Amino acid sequence: MTQRSTDTPSIQRLELALARITAAGDEGARIFTRVYANSARDAANASDRRRGAGKAVGPLDGRIVAIKDLFDVAGEATTAGSALLRDAAPAVKDAVVVSRLRAAGAVIIGKTNMTEFAFSGVGINPHYGTPGNALDISRIPGGSSSGAGVSVARCMAEIAIGSDTGGSVRIPSALNGLVGFKPTQARVTREGAFPLSFILDTLGPLCHSVADAAATDSVLAGITPQALPQRDVRGLRLGVPRGLLFSQAQDEVLGAVEQALAQLAGAGAQVRDETLDDLLGEPFRLQERGTLVAAEAAWIHRDWVNSRPEEYDPIVLGRIRRGQTLDAATYVGIQQARAALLPALDARLTQLDALVLPTVPLLAPRIADVQAEEVFLRTNALLLRNPSVFNFFDLPALTLPLPRGNGLAVGLMLVGRRGQDRELLALGAAVERQLGSH
Amino acid sequence: MTQRSTDTPSIQRLELALARITAAGDEGARIFTRVYANSARDAANASDRRRGAGKAVGPLDGRIVAIKDLFDVAGEATTAGSALLRDAAPAVKDAVVVSRLRAAGAVIIGKTNMTEFAFSGVGINPHYGTPGNALDISRIPGGSSSGAGVSVARCMAEIAIGSDTGGSVRIPSALNGLVGFKPTQARVTREGAFPLSFILDTLGPLCHSVADAAATDSVLAGITPQALPQRDVRGLRLGVPRGLLFSQAQDEVLGAVEQALAQLAGAGAQVRDETLDDLLGEPFRLQERGTLVAAEAAWIHRDWVNSRPEEYDPIVLGRIRRGQTLDAATYVGIQQARAALLPALDARLTQLDALVLPTVPLLAPRIADVQAEEVFLRTNALLLRNPSVFNFFDLPALTLPLPRGNGLAVGLMLVGRRGQDRELLALGAAVERQLGSH
Repeated sequence: MTQRSTDTPSIQRLELALARITAAGDEGARIFTRVYANSARDAANASDRRRGAGKAVGPLDGRIVAIKDLFDVAGEATTAGSALLRDAAPAVKDAVVVSRLRAAGAVIIGKTNMTEFAFSGVGINPHYGTPGNALDISRIPGGSSSGAGVSVARCMAEIAIGSDTGGSVRIPSALNGLVGFKPTQARVTREGAFPLSFILDTLGPLCHSVADAAATDSVLAGITPQALPQRDVRGLRLGVPRGLLFSQAQDEVLGAVEQALAQLAGAGAQVRDETLDDLLGEPFRLQERGTLVAAEAAWIHRDWVNSRPEEYDPIVLGRIRRGQTLDAATYVGIQQARAALLPALDARLTQLDALVLPTVPLLAPRIADVQAEEVFLRTNALLLRNPSVFNFFDLPALTLPLPRGNGLAVGLMLVGRRGQDRELLALGAAVERQLGSH
Repeated sequence: MTQRSTDTPSIQRLELALARITAAGDEGARIFTRVYANSARDAANASDRRRGAGKAVGPLDGRIVAIKDLFDVAGEATTAGSALLRDAAPAVKDAVVVSRLRAAGAVIIGKTNMTEFAFSGVGINPHYGTPGNALDISRIPGGSSSGAGVSVARCMAEIAIGSDTGGSVRIPSALNGLVGFKPTQARVTREGAFPLSFILDTLGPLCHSVADAAATDSVLAGITPQALPQRDVRGLRLGVPRGLLFSQAQDEVLGAVEQALAQLAGAGAQVRDETLDDLLGEPFRLQERGTLVAAEAAWIHRDWVNSRPEEYDPIVLGRIRRGQTLDAATYVGIQQARAALLPALDARLTQLDALVLPTVPLLAPRIADVQAEEVFLRTNALLLRNPSVFNFFDLPALTLPLPRGNGLAVGLMLVGRRGQDRELLALGAAVERQLGSH
């Protein structure tokens, strides 16, 4: 993916990005739900003046950034990929992360399309259309941050900001060949982001390099960006949780992951299998009768699902309705079990620097092949499976694109310890260098 | 309530307490579900030796302490006032607070009776009997820490440890003429205490003085007890939330509270009315369809209510069954609303040192008068009303006995800021001195 150097003036990079969106025609309109050409030009010019005067405000100054359609921008209705919220009251102020991006000099180019209400991992949207995968337009983009992934992979933005409740940053990153980062939940405030789950929502970047992911993560977290500490692959203790999260994986995915593991071992990393299925399977066992996410969505959507059901994506509506059937006692039980499981997994990770596994077990399927509801739901469950485990366990997780020929993308997921987001990013940068995936 | 000075050897005070329990016959057995005569004598003698050698380990060394029947004691089944758990597996170790009490030199005299599973404020128990109120045996003791309140008021213990989820420490304290303290929830670990609600359970003392409450609270919290800072009533800013929490109050209760307020104002406190019903009424409005407590109890009791319903107190079973009907989405909504309400009330309290109100609006009713289920439920709701608001808002709350002639007891509740438990206790000690209630 060729990129202009960031030495190029921001306005030039912005104009190219805008031109690509325009040139993509209807597809551009499926990737972006809004384009802020004028305000972005103002921001880019202002950044160029700052940078020309040697007064750049940090590594994001002048970077072209797209934001998912669920972030508040003052004066606009936040639609969150829905038709339902087109008539919502305009947001009074920017989401906190949007304010932080602007203060860091980022050039907000537009809002990107998404799964309605962020509630599925495939990336289909019946209202605004489904952006095709950047590597094969006939294939799904992954979701819920569908336009985010495609926009960055097609160089319509340099960085996109998504939300990730069960994989919504990492799935489109993996399927479009990008770096994607989901932080520990407490790291980034979600104020001004339309919620899917209060318990599990996180916010993070989709981009082309771990360095960009780290700089963006710092800005989102309200921390002054610093260069990542240098780590070496040699001596890294990497655990491979073979079992459940390697099951049902396509050969191309397994092959790419095994090759990466061999390369890391060859470079001196200590790569060893870890038996963790007793814990990693618990989110699924506990949530058989209904998920935390669905129960929370059922509350958030309590009025609309009854008064305006016909305006929903039927698949999203079905998932919310399922959440309505969960009883409070079971929800309490899931929360209690989760509270005990978090330290239990943590205790098993003390001797590791990271877990390594496929981000998703599939290459991006064809859009035409997931139209039937039953296939859609099965595909969706499989796409969400691996990423969602680490929302449940609230661990930071990074997906890196594995090198590929002319084919589709495969993501390698690195999972760190809770709250040790910077350590994971530093480790990820070392792995990225080793694999030559940047 | 005459008490032996703590200068008297612990063993002498213990023997007197044991003699009172024995002398009370069947009533003693309704107050205590277990008496640890032998181990208590050992502990008292050990304390006397320490104290004789000038090596007392703190203000609780040698104090006679009763613990509610829901605390784990190693080797015993924890029955929590139920028949159901008589066959439970013995606890492997003491509850954390029991360990802390022992380490602080406390002499654990026995376990006190309680409402089954701590799930009502009246204090009736069909399995172990209902201890009569210490001031009139024909009246309810208040609950759920029924035996705790009566044991201290009848000098069968100097201090009792209770749990308070909606008033279970403060109600029996108020109805038996005691000091009772409910801390901010995070202050005292509940490990080894049989749960009613994970969200709302707190642990605290019932005793005869604020000084004892403060010393015990420190031990329960794992903090080395220190004397309370001296406060003066003069200049205290006391807010009186007239409205909902003063409604349906009996004349005797209102009269005693007004007299106390006048006395505090006369001593220089700034006593002023506060309009807070918009916030204080929210816990009731939000929980009309079901309470957080009932939903959590429904999870804790999920197996037993189905497999062994006949072993429950029918009233407790009914409350748990009601909790089973709450849906997860509503539960999520209550939690979300609560998260917003806590800082909202906090912001309204910044100009106050404490709220002051009746702990409960009733004098203890006659046991015979609350037998009908409908009367029971109405009385229970009224007893829990004022205390439970401050579990919902997670504020520390202290009840002080108001001076009385030959009548029944009235409690004055002081409510502080979240996490400022010591400040509230210091303020409470000043009010206690002023009112002469100690």
